[in-house]
Amino acid sequence: MQSLQEKASEWSGVATSDAFAIDETNLFESLGGNQPFIDLSTNFYTRVYDDEEEWFRSIFANSKKEDAIQNQYEFFIQRMGGPPLFSQRRGHPALIARHRPFPVTREAAERWLHHMQLALDTTSTIDPDSKIKMMNFFKHTAYFLVAGNEMTRQAQSVVCKHAASKPPS
Amino acid sequence: MQSLQEKASEWSGVATSDAFAIDETNLFESLGGNQPFIDLSTNFYTRVYDDEEEWFRSIFANSKKEDAIQNQYEFFIQRMGGPPLFSQRRGHPALIARHRPFPVTREAAERWLHHMQLALDTTSTIDPDSKIKMMNFFKHTAYFLVAGNEMTRQAQSVVCKHAASKPPS
Repeated sequence: MQSLQEKASEWSGVATSDAFAIDETNLFESLGGNQPFIDLSTNFYTRVYDDEEEWFRSIFANSKKEDAIQNQYEFFIQRMGGPPLFSQRRGHPALIARHRPFPVTREAAERWLHHMQLALDTTSTIDPDSKIKMMNFFKHTAYFLVAGNEMTRQAQSVVCKHAASKPPS
Repeated sequence: MQSLQEKASEWSGVATSDAFAIDETNLFESLGGNQPFIDLSTNFYTRVYDDEEEWFRSIFANSKKEDAIQNQYEFFIQRMGGPPLFSQRRGHPALIARHRPFPVTREAAERWLHHMQLALDTTSTIDPDSKIKMMNFFKHTAYFLVAGNEMTRQAQSVVCKHAASKPPS
């Protein structure tokens, strides 16, 4: 059986070594602290909450925009070499489990990446080389979550079938 | 509703600030690299695979001991300031999702922590102050996973009931 990591690489077209090139340098330090990450997440969610595609916009309908922005930039800062802001406030990232309520399909991953590419394009506080590294990480992670979503739903369906086939007690 | 983080703190008795005191210094650097983490995980799983409690030992029965050791020390090294060995090989830690196949009950968390405390006690390459920081992180994380396990199973049960109550198509 293919691992989550293998599926993420195959589906995103990004090799693991490229996805985790974000770890070759400390991006938090080289970008100069929190602000570029706050800029990026603000640009990203401003696009998302304003998306003309209702099916995608509705995924975020139950979250406040400012909370979504903070959750995202705190995770990015922590993952890219900065202080562990996300874990101090919310615990382990637990990416797959925290995305469980959402339909993380391939279409949703592509739409997420579309907005993220445009958000990066318009974030002047991030240099071009860092943008490439970050986008590779995002692509790989988006499809890692698609693979995680499929895994979770398959396991759920097996458990439900098993429960349904039990004789009444 | 209590968050995962709040449940982890309440159930473990470890405040978030103590749990993430591992981030105040770079433990990987201060301990001098990979070896103390390899020692710890080897001591830990040697106890676990030899546990007299069959119910606990059986949780690990489908994994090879050497794989369990490597998965654990690579995660610890990555989380405690070292190179991202785990992510390079397996992707995001995704702690709750990767523990989904296992019955992460409070009893299992306590037994895990019991073995980890003894494993730390017998790992001479880790200094006493680091041991306290690490144990606080482990306690909080163990109950974070208990909370995650309950969340996953509750969500599953809701979906199953929903599926079962649908009229036959």
